[in-house]
Amino acid sequence: MRSWLKFRLLSAHIQCPIKPIACQDCKTMPFSLDKQLEADSLFVTSYDDIQIRVMNDARYVWVLLVPEIADMTELHDLSPDKQQILLQLAASIGAGIKTTPMPNLPAITKINTALIGNIVSQLHLHIVGRHPDDAAWPAPVWGMGSAIKLDENATNHRRQLIHKIMDAFQEN
Amino acid sequence: MRSWLKFRLLSAHIQCPIKPIACQDCKTMPFSLDKQLEADSLFVTSYDDIQIRVMNDARYVWVLLVPEIADMTELHDLSPDKQQILLQLAASIGAGIKTTPMPNLPAITKINTALIGNIVSQLHLHIVGRHPDDAAWPAPVWGMGSAIKLDENATNHRRQLIHKIMDAFQEN
Repeated sequence: MRSWLKFRLLSAHIQCPIKPIACQDCKTMPFSLDKQLEADSLFVTSYDDIQIRVMNDARYVWVLLVPEIADMTELHDLSPDKQQILLQLAASIGAGIKTTPMPNLPAITKINTALIGNIVSQLHLHIVGRHPDDAAWPAPVWGMGSAIKLDENATNHRRQLIHKIMDAFQEN
Repeated sequence: MRSWLKFRLLSAHIQCPIKPIACQDCKTMPFSLDKQLEADSLFVTSYDDIQIRVMNDARYVWVLLVPEIADMTELHDLSPDKQQILLQLAASIGAGIKTTPMPNLPAITKINTALIGNIVSQLHLHIVGRHPDDAAWPAPVWGMGSAIKLDENATNHRRQLIHKIMDAFQEN
């Protein structure tokens, strides 16, 4: 993008009193994944311009959904259609996590589904498989202890799980 | 309900290996609000058999949505139609909380929307208005400190907010 155009868009956006969803200038802003989300999670695949990522944390089966739209922070910032796709993905991934045994992890007994975003404001939805012996139970996972990085096997198992869920999702 | 019928339904349900959504016997089980949810929150109104309640905690503007369906614990346990209504309500209530100033509370800067349910498994969705000076920021609200009960004024302001949001919701 030419720098003067980028500057014009950026200026328009910074001053924009309109919600991004309704603002033509903001709509043209390029999406850029938040640096913290990028550092904490691994890209697996995408669906309808929603990134499906896994948190790089062996303590949990933890999926992130990140719509690739600039300057979204709240569920209600998304269009109704995009909200619905996000919901359908969240429900399907939650069901898949709960019903698919993972090597070296106890059975998942509860799914936590949440949009928090108090620290990283870029809109992202968490789907976390929980069990009563996990590191944070019964508390939520956010801010509890430190991540244990995934090894190659654990990464592959999570990637396989997501691909299996998404194959089924796209067949329906 | 006659006691023998209630017993038959209860027996069928306890032994039921089928997910509640697919089980004819479970579908006929009466809904009963979880005692902890009942103790912690106040009923305001309902929409399409989803209770809209406010948490009895003056520290936050905190709404609970509780579908009146027995034995639901996960988002994916709900029918797709009910999931969608829950989502639409969550988005509208979140938008309403964020854009409506409340007496004696700073402006809301972030909405947290979550299904957790690790302690109370009955399906309930949280919508919490957050700001950087609140009691738990930037951590999630669950398990942080103790609730401060709403006084009559604060209760009325929250009831008015919900009714205003729901009036607009039902007009659209």
